[in-house]
Amino acid sequence: MEDNNCIKKMKLDVEVEEFNKLFEELNEENTIQWGEKVPEVMDAMLYFKEVAAYNVPFGKKNRGMTVINSYCHMIGSAKVTEENKRRARILGWCIEWLQAFFLVADDIMDKSELRRGKPCWYKKESVGMNAVNDAFQLEMCVYDMLKRHFRDQPYYVDLLELFHEVSGQTIIGQNLDMLASPIEGKVDFSTFTMEKYSAIVKWKTAFYSFYLPVACAMYQAGLNDEVSHQNAKTILLKMGHFFQIQDDYLDCYGDPKVIGKVGRDIEENKCSWLIVQALQRASPEQLQILNENYAKDDPANVAKVKTVYNELNLKQVYADFEEESYSELIKTIEQQSGDLPQQMFLDLAEKIYKRKK
Amino acid sequence: MEDNNCIKKMKLDVEVEEFNKLFEELNEENTIQWGEKVPEVMDAMLYFKEVAAYNVPFGKKNRGMTVINSYCHMIGSAKVTEENKRRARILGWCIEWLQAFFLVADDIMDKSELRRGKPCWYKKESVGMNAVNDAFQLEMCVYDMLKRHFRDQPYYVDLLELFHEVSGQTIIGQNLDMLASPIEGKVDFSTFTMEKYSAIVKWKTAFYSFYLPVACAMYQAGLNDEVSHQNAKTILLKMGHFFQIQDDYLDCYGDPKVIGKVGRDIEENKCSWLIVQALQRASPEQLQILNENYAKDDPANVAKVKTVYNELNLKQVYADFEEESYSELIKTIEQQSGDLPQQMFLDLAEKIYKRKK
Repeated sequence: MEDNNCIKKMKLDVEVEEFNKLFEELNEENTIQWGEKVPEVMDAMLYFKEVAAYNVPFGKKNRGMTVINSYCHMIGSAKVTEENKRRARILGWCIEWLQAFFLVADDIMDKSELRRGKPCWYKKESVGMNAVNDAFQLEMCVYDMLKRHFRDQPYYVDLLELFHEVSGQTIIGQNLDMLASPIEGKVDFSTFTMEKYSAIVKWKTAFYSFYLPVACAMYQAGLNDEVSHQNAKTILLKMGHFFQIQDDYLDCYGDPKVIGKVGRDIEENKCSWLIVQALQRASPEQLQILNENYAKDDPANVAKVKTVYNELNLKQVYADFEEESYSELIKTIEQQSGDLPQQMFLDLAEKIYKRKK
Repeated sequence: MEDNNCIKKMKLDVEVEEFNKLFEELNEENTIQWGEKVPEVMDAMLYFKEVAAYNVPFGKKNRGMTVINSYCHMIGSAKVTEENKRRARILGWCIEWLQAFFLVADDIMDKSELRRGKPCWYKKESVGMNAVNDAFQLEMCVYDMLKRHFRDQPYYVDLLELFHEVSGQTIIGQNLDMLASPIEGKVDFSTFTMEKYSAIVKWKTAFYSFYLPVACAMYQAGLNDEVSHQNAKTILLKMGHFFQIQDDYLDCYGDPKVIGKVGRDIEENKCSWLIVQALQRASPEQLQILNENYAKDDPANVAKVKTVYNELNLKQVYADFEEESYSELIKTIEQQSGDLPQQMFLDLAEKIYKRKK
């Protein structure tokens, strides 16, 4: 068993390396596609090359790697051609580019300082609000890459519509998130319900982080029937739900050096899983402390909120939730996979649970 | 002749009215497509409905109206079915939505105050930086509308690729514009050449304002050959070039009440046609004044720049240029229309020259 795991690990490292290697090639292609034909835009293309180099390749790449992993599960590793491996990797990078587009924009809107251990792109002195246009450009690269590499594939239109749809869902989710945390900064806990929380997570994170990579692989594998996509969505949105709860937990309890950012959910008045749990458990006195200290951009206020979280033992609440949610997910996978390989979903689940960043 | 013009004018008013009527319907469709199926996102969809109502329908709508006008020229007015008129109008609104996406974002990046006579969207108290996400949503509406109304048309993929391509070109143009006017605010006139100016204009404005509407109509009319599109591009990019020069002129000399915005090209260190012309004509003394006063956010500095513009008689330089550029454009239309109806381009040219806003 240990040997087997070791081999699995080695293969994974090789695959990550193959995936990483492709980034430079794609970024170069995106740069020269206009620039070489039209020298007058070369300056812009070189600038955009830097935008991508700074913002695209430094994530965990779980989303990107999920495409090829899922594709191999569906086709059977032995039967996958080199050409199709390459295509799956390109789709993976399309998702990483799309994610960079969202993150560059989110950081502007959330006034964040750090992302993946570096200053946020808009925080760089020479960038500022130009980052808005840079985010658009990152999005455009997705469609450039799809056109260059998938135009002659029967699932080209499916991919275009998939990326449009999932982008739209993420934008809706971002809006739900903002409506729940109005900029005026007035705390109104009445909207911080578990229902509202679940809706935000599903739309803002789960579609693009979990459904999108598997759906890409499904289209590439020729699976475009409604039922299979609906089954995949049921499982993957559940996974996404847990993933975001974990993210909220790490925002408060994770090590900034490990997660690469400094949590700001409390300061930014976010409808986070922790505050929703706290509100369900707080005494009138604790509720008053939360009311007086949430959504304030001052370490003293943040500390008081965290003290209530600790009094309510939210670390344990989370640990219990994690166990329970894992068994539920496994059950859903067993019941809802339909014609899709269960192992594809189990592999993903394994990666997410117990992550530290 | 007068009668004929009068009838033309009446028909035009009716067509504008038909076009305007469609906005509410499309905005409603965009709202309910998700909202009715999924009540949890209804709040977001109602918010986005407002975003569109504020930002989409108050422009001059020249771009939007150009689709149906061009389509009628190509098919012959008598032969156009009601169904296809409606389709052409929807494509027109797709362009107006795309334009709103660019303008909402541009206003954030340019720190503008007014747009179309109202406060810029991001300037509204309850909006702020959320406007970045609202811009994305306006863009997404384009693809929602294309999917809803063109999915079964043979030119659906052509439209998707066209909107992607033109969006990408506009984003490149926006970047060229920003690179020419670095935020550090240091004046460096060495990059303000006519070549640089032409490149910015072509990429930032001409593709989406002139080529895009005519290209939509061409695809709808079944014209998808490379040669026709290349011919149209040659003519329409020339038109776009003049249009932007006019825009730059109005930024300085137009009436803010008429143009609906307060010009900020001098304050924002823009590579405007006026400064490029001034640099070609200025004496060493005038050059020094420009150097000391351009790109400063103070009315006293702006006034000094404008004094130099007046000394150099730029109003007359512009008037002469307008005459010359018009005759050149007519010549290009005669030579380059190929299989496309010349009158389609002449109608457009007529609308642009001598505009006041």
